[in-house]
Amino acid sequence: MLTVYSDNHRLQNARFELIDGKLLPPFENPLRADRVLAQVQQVGLGAVLPIQTFGLDPILRVHDPGYVAFLQTAWSDWVTAHGEYDALPLNWAVRTMRHDRVPETIDGRLSYYSFDAGTPITSGTWQAITASANVALTAQQQIAQGAGSAFALCRPPGHHAAKDFYGGYCFLNNAAIAAQAFCDAGAARVAILDLDYHHGNGTQAIFYERSDVLFVSLHGHPSQEYPYFLGFEDELGQGAGAGYNQNYPLRWGTDWSQYQTVLAEALNRIKTYSPDVLLVSLGVDTFEQDPISEFKLKSADYLKIGASLAGLKKPTLFVLEGGYAIEQIGVNVVNVLTAFEEAELSR
Amino acid sequence: MLTVYSDNHRLQNARFELIDGKLLPPFENPLRADRVLAQVQQVGLGAVLPIQTFGLDPILRVHDPGYVAFLQTAWSDWVTAHGEYDALPLNWAVRTMRHDRVPETIDGRLSYYSFDAGTPITSGTWQAITASANVALTAQQQIAQGAGSAFALCRPPGHHAAKDFYGGYCFLNNAAIAAQAFCDAGAARVAILDLDYHHGNGTQAIFYERSDVLFVSLHGHPSQEYPYFLGFEDELGQGAGAGYNQNYPLRWGTDWSQYQTVLAEALNRIKTYSPDVLLVSLGVDTFEQDPISEFKLKSADYLKIGASLAGLKKPTLFVLEGGYAIEQIGVNVVNVLTAFEEAELSR
Repeated sequence: MLTVYSDNHRLQNARFELIDGKLLPPFENPLRADRVLAQVQQVGLGAVLPIQTFGLDPILRVHDPGYVAFLQTAWSDWVTAHGEYDALPLNWAVRTMRHDRVPETIDGRLSYYSFDAGTPITSGTWQAITASANVALTAQQQIAQGAGSAFALCRPPGHHAAKDFYGGYCFLNNAAIAAQAFCDAGAARVAILDLDYHHGNGTQAIFYERSDVLFVSLHGHPSQEYPYFLGFEDELGQGAGAGYNQNYPLRWGTDWSQYQTVLAEALNRIKTYSPDVLLVSLGVDTFEQDPISEFKLKSADYLKIGASLAGLKKPTLFVLEGGYAIEQIGVNVVNVLTAFEEAELSR
Repeated sequence: MLTVYSDNHRLQNARFELIDGKLLPPFENPLRADRVLAQVQQVGLGAVLPIQTFGLDPILRVHDPGYVAFLQTAWSDWVTAHGEYDALPLNWAVRTMRHDRVPETIDGRLSYYSFDAGTPITSGTWQAITASANVALTAQQQIAQGAGSAFALCRPPGHHAAKDFYGGYCFLNNAAIAAQAFCDAGAARVAILDLDYHHGNGTQAIFYERSDVLFVSLHGHPSQEYPYFLGFEDELGQGAGAGYNQNYPLRWGTDWSQYQTVLAEALNRIKTYSPDVLLVSLGVDTFEQDPISEFKLKSADYLKIGASLAGLKKPTLFVLEGGYAIEQIGVNVVNVLTAFEEAELSR
């Protein structure tokens, strides 16, 4: 399986993130991608391709132009107002508040275009997130040109980013941008399977009213887990998208025996949809040793996930999302990919 | 003029607040109330009364029971989950997200019941905020029993707190609770004039659909200033409350010459309403040296504000809100009160 990778992920390297009421060194840091790449190379997964650049057009197919313009200048606007340190927003437009006017000041715009306080904007954020989107698009193009599978080693991740807000370490929704690129290249049906521990609220919201992109997610139950305010079972899509969104929220402590049953259901749902292409939002924060998550999957379980995914027999684009157990992230991610490939080859 | 005060404000004494992307020692700290009390005593404003306790009933007339129950146990729930350090939420239900389900876990409930990341819940928060509400209610009762004016030296402040969320250093909306107590004691029309630099989004939202409480506010323009997502001129009330909400957003750099014109307009609006009682949400972060604000009022201007308020000739309850220039907060607040009283006496 080919991998697409860009060193520019290093440019997102914040000093702190707010988590559990503390400013801590970020769990989402460059070591994550380094370890995944090292493992890709160690097992000889396949060629590692550099990114091609696709400009803003495919990004603007998914994200709001005002939001993208904001991301492009947020760092310099912040530095002008406050100085050269990571930017964090302060408050949000919850119930009874308005979101029909974009504030003028950088602090107000950070608040408007975000949904959490744990996702710093740094000097290199814009370069890192456009590179990450290009990683996904380069891999997407490989599949569009005939590759049976590809791995987009994206960092920063993307699945929490919605049309016009960031959060959860995500700014541009790499998976959604790639899915849209498949649609724009002629795919009639694209399925996204989100396996990250956290619900992919951004991806769901982007495609919630569409039937040409099915969104299926297994994740920590939002009653217990970030992002809390999306990811329930009763979110089934809306309008033309009614019936094309499927959430499988799972309780803290979920282990492989419970997970595999639900995964099988999810794969059946995708099989029924019969997509032209499958896109996997691949987070491995379902791992038992993940420092911010509460599932109990073991490294060997990721092999079983990979083999199960191959059972769908579809062109498959893997897009890296979360996973914060630095020492094991490489093994866990690459276990999915190698097992997928072995199952494909043995067909 | 009598003052009501409780030492319990000291129990809200956080180690840090998130502001401008940094965790800093809180601007909203016990010294604020200490300095105001010292100035009250120094000028001999009048008797300083302790609080009476009113229980939860008058609080529940304004706030959601689930929210109040959350505040009551938030600290112990947080300590159980994380340990003994100040609690901060992480993410919020912005557009595309749901707010019809209250999360089970403490982190989720902090996020659900808040709108900013700068308002820590500490070991003493519950005691401090109920004392602060009782300060307002004790002063309210003095006026209900015939006093022409009273000063509720509230801390923590209240005007950002809505029916079911906290933020902006505010948890229980002291002014709204006192206003409701006036209504419940038989007042047909209560006017709230909010002079804090920041829009009183909580107070506005609480009374937005009611005609028996007029809300009038002068504040930093939400396009430029926290809380950003409420406080525009076109928010005029709704349903039965249509026409009973009036915002005067003012731009950064506003000085007395501009402020006094708008204040005169606001007072005219209140005069037309002909309230039984006036409640003033008294923030002095409009001061030129306030560390987090951008207006240019001078200490002497607060004398003029006090005299102007006396012109309404109504029973008047002053409720302390913001003001973060520690050295001058006492003088600025008490300038309003002494000038009010002098103007009253000279009538």
